[in-house]
Amino acid sequence: MSNKAVYTAVAERPTTFDDIRKAAERIAPYVHRTPVLTSSSLDERFGGQLFFKCENFQRIGAFKARGATNAVFSLDEERAGAGVATHSSGNHGAALALAASLRGIRSWIVVPTDAPVVKSESVRRLGANFVSCEPGLANREAALEKVLADTGAEMVHPYNDWRVIAGQGTAAMELLEDQPELDLLMTPVGGGGLLSGCAVAAKAMRRGIEVIGCEPAGADDAQRSFRSGELQAMPNPRTVADGLRGALGTRTFAVIRTLVDDIVTVSEDEIIAAMRLVWERLKIVIEPSCAVPVAALLSGAVRLDGRKAGIVLTGGNVDLDNLPWR
Amino acid sequence: MSNKAVYTAVAERPTTFDDIRKAAERIAPYVHRTPVLTSSSLDERFGGQLFFKCENFQRIGAFKARGATNAVFSLDEERAGAGVATHSSGNHGAALALAASLRGIRSWIVVPTDAPVVKSESVRRLGANFVSCEPGLANREAALEKVLADTGAEMVHPYNDWRVIAGQGTAAMELLEDQPELDLLMTPVGGGGLLSGCAVAAKAMRRGIEVIGCEPAGADDAQRSFRSGELQAMPNPRTVADGLRGALGTRTFAVIRTLVDDIVTVSEDEIIAAMRLVWERLKIVIEPSCAVPVAALLSGAVRLDGRKAGIVLTGGNVDLDNLPWR
Repeated sequence: MSNKAVYTAVAERPTTFDDIRKAAERIAPYVHRTPVLTSSSLDERFGGQLFFKCENFQRIGAFKARGATNAVFSLDEERAGAGVATHSSGNHGAALALAASLRGIRSWIVVPTDAPVVKSESVRRLGANFVSCEPGLANREAALEKVLADTGAEMVHPYNDWRVIAGQGTAAMELLEDQPELDLLMTPVGGGGLLSGCAVAAKAMRRGIEVIGCEPAGADDAQRSFRSGELQAMPNPRTVADGLRGALGTRTFAVIRTLVDDIVTVSEDEIIAAMRLVWERLKIVIEPSCAVPVAALLSGAVRLDGRKAGIVLTGGNVDLDNLPWR
Repeated sequence: MSNKAVYTAVAERPTTFDDIRKAAERIAPYVHRTPVLTSSSLDERFGGQLFFKCENFQRIGAFKARGATNAVFSLDEERAGAGVATHSSGNHGAALALAASLRGIRSWIVVPTDAPVVKSESVRRLGANFVSCEPGLANREAALEKVLADTGAEMVHPYNDWRVIAGQGTAAMELLEDQPELDLLMTPVGGGGLLSGCAVAAKAMRRGIEVIGCEPAGADDAQRSFRSGELQAMPNPRTVADGLRGALGTRTFAVIRTLVDDIVTVSEDEIIAAMRLVWERLKIVIEPSCAVPVAALLSGAVRLDGRKAGIVLTGGNVDLDNLPWR
């Protein structure tokens, strides 16, 4: 399938595997090469072999450190000098704040008042300029516009940015370096930065690998976009997976419609059950968004049938006073 | 200091480092070599370098798999044929049930009705003969006596057994293989199986290493025994650290008084704060007992002063519906 029209519309060169390799070199001094965990009890339960890439152990507790760090360290001296800015209710804000502090430049993070406390506190701790705004995309964008106009900072979008997409793709690159014989790769999909970057890496590194995006049914714009071939809006997302409420962007959609094999959806109950299952069996802390691919196995939306599957566990920033099974 | 009298009293050869090396070979096919995690934020906070040996990722979710597996696979065919038995409110029961099923022999586990549900369910799932009894040491021992009389099974004590002590010591052996330059090793101490086995390994492998046992103030028999030089009882332990309510045994005390450098105690609030800190920073699930060495750092009972310290994170079996900070 050609997606030339989409690429032309954004008038830029989309991320290649070479960009991902360069991103990996660029960010190596600043982010962790995260471990890959396995679980014999989960392998038995799901009838295959699972390899969990633990981005919950990444700096700031999420894969977002990869993309933000690649974007910040891609800037030339002059643009970096003006600082960076974004709006975020979650891990991207902390990731950009960290990357900016590592480079020694300023950052402004617009954070809506309904952001999870654990995530907004992380932004404050990392020394960013914290800009509070009312909830809702329009308010967030208006507040960010004002910051950009006032400061001249460089906008780093949480996902619809080739530098960010290339950075996120390094997660799949590392996983396939450690486990070259994967038959299947699963990631959550919200805005699509992780899924698109990982799809580029996986399809370049492993012939015939299947790449599946996993999405909450209450925020199913990616599945609708993928199936219709047209970018669909997500006006009123309803899901406990707070990291997956965003909608695909033009760039992430362009990659996903070309390289991804399928997008499946799961219910809220399945997400919570999967989150708890990972805590109990892998003994690691993951956030709800992170559990969505495991939920797709629990629900039967994806079947392993003896295959080797990689799952990117995206993050572990969860409010321990408000666990979803309470 | 000589402890010949104590060794003579138990009339057996105490665990040597060679026993631990043999145990490591014996159990290697059945247990995990667990990873060692680090955290730059915790290193900064505590002023040193910390290496966490993650036995919460061990089979059955705790280091107890090591000792029980070594005991079960040390039995000759005839003794193994009669099966094994123990009483346990916690991880040792699941560990012995697993080891017996791996060897294909029968097991009987006496479990008091006040055992944590997460731990007793694990015993059931592993196919042991589950023998329920009323709480309290006397009831547990009486129920176990009856099982032993009825079945002829081999008793495998949770800690006061040289085979178990040697198995637990493999945790420190692996940690020092991975990080040979440790200045300090910290473990929790309840019955003392882990602390004594790890002390034998650490003192054999690393000249001058300091070994510190960490204990809840509400179950401080090990500290009192260590300081007085006489084995002290712990009639009424009160601590959230359910794995550390047991008292030292004759064998574990014999090793600890000789090889361990100090035993420190921590409060309940410090244990809970340390448990939460590990969940938040390391993104891993640990049980309260497991947090006690970190609590000793939080309280200042142990200071790193720039040193490299190994901590055995002992287990991750926690009831997710009853977290201690609720």
